[in-house]
Amino acid sequence: MNIILLEKDDFIDVSRVSITGHRSEHISAVLRAEPGQTLKIGMINGNIGQGIFIAGDSQHIELEVGDFTIAPPAPLPITLIVAMQRPKTMKKIIQSATAMGVKRFIIIETWKVEKSYWSSPLLQPREFEEQFRLGLAQGGDTVVPTIIIKKRFKPFVEDELPGIVNGTLGLVAHPTATELCPYNVNGQVTLAIGPEGGFTAYEVDKMSAAGMLAVNIGPRPLRSEFAVTAILARLS
Amino acid sequence: MNIILLEKDDFIDVSRVSITGHRSEHISAVLRAEPGQTLKIGMINGNIGQGIFIAGDSQHIELEVGDFTIAPPAPLPITLIVAMQRPKTMKKIIQSATAMGVKRFIIIETWKVEKSYWSSPLLQPREFEEQFRLGLAQGGDTVVPTIIIKKRFKPFVEDELPGIVNGTLGLVAHPTATELCPYNVNGQVTLAIGPEGGFTAYEVDKMSAAGMLAVNIGPRPLRSEFAVTAILARLS
Repeated sequence: MNIILLEKDDFIDVSRVSITGHRSEHISAVLRAEPGQTLKIGMINGNIGQGIFIAGDSQHIELEVGDFTIAPPAPLPITLIVAMQRPKTMKKIIQSATAMGVKRFIIIETWKVEKSYWSSPLLQPREFEEQFRLGLAQGGDTVVPTIIIKKRFKPFVEDELPGIVNGTLGLVAHPTATELCPYNVNGQVTLAIGPEGGFTAYEVDKMSAAGMLAVNIGPRPLRSEFAVTAILARLS
Repeated sequence: MNIILLEKDDFIDVSRVSITGHRSEHISAVLRAEPGQTLKIGMINGNIGQGIFIAGDSQHIELEVGDFTIAPPAPLPITLIVAMQRPKTMKKIIQSATAMGVKRFIIIETWKVEKSYWSSPLLQPREFEEQFRLGLAQGGDTVVPTIIIKKRFKPFVEDELPGIVNGTLGLVAHPTATELCPYNVNGQVTLAIGPEGGFTAYEVDKMSAAGMLAVNIGPRPLRSEFAVTAILARLS
């Protein structure tokens, strides 16, 4: 954790918070904080500040907090459209892309998505929230992303995608594309990443018709979670 | 697996191989290959070709193989110097960097490397070999990287690093560096990535004296395995 995220409910006084769970465990076991030590803290969806460790252990820790005066880091101006993945992989993608600053996720169905993935408990809002918080804590950020799920490819791509892509650079990661993925793009990007096994040619065609360009990042296929990181790193 | 890696010992005839273990399990359970199906195969440290599934199950599979006529993808011209990590993280780094084409790894000690990591069974050559093969199979490559371990930072940086960096672009990933990591670099690169918690200022100074430039990849700290992927993707 590179920031301890706080909510209003954590406040027991105007300048004192009491935290439990993952956060107190981390402060105690990993950061090994001691009384008087300052920690980077942030209000969920708010600013960043400093907290002073007052007392506590892995079960429960009290911090004294002052003003929250520092704005969170700028968001990455990339909408990430990602095919549903094996839940373990999906968690890594959401965490790492959140740590890199993605604020808008759209999870879609595609031909090669295994149907069983849709019954994963990951798809409950509380689970996404957990992954977002892990990502934000890693990236030193406070602003919770949004996520929407589109379980029907065709209506999404035909009816909604053109409006999402409009005014942005639309890119579909596709290993056999002839165009290379650009570097260091300024402005808004809409990026689509396929399932293990990739998008079908039909799906790439449909997304191209919606205004997206198919691009590759070299001759070597990467695991989905690393492909997402690699492309975000190139673009940002 | 995007390629089935073969060794001389797998050959039971001039044009027939018999494979077991991970590979036969993968062909059977994940690829669900059927008789007559062609599979991408490659000789370890050699060329790439096609194999035809003859018969078998998850325990043992026979393939008919022809000529190996396709060269493996070009290596990434990056020497990756990486501080020893938690073994689970180190495995991911070796696998993913191998999948991206890194052919030369140097694992080093630094101040913030936990001493206990050095007693990990990962550090046995057979274990590295396993991670290399998983990475090569992912990346569709055949050429096994080399790895060396330097358990003393100062003699390595003073006596060996200048010769390694010489003629290459030397970069040290350091979150507080003012210089931004470049994109799409041509030519050889020597890249150093720190432990969880980063290099100390002293370590960065020593590496700078050896000819390396400290660079950052933005305001957000990433987990080591994703930081490696992100920087390799930017450079390559």
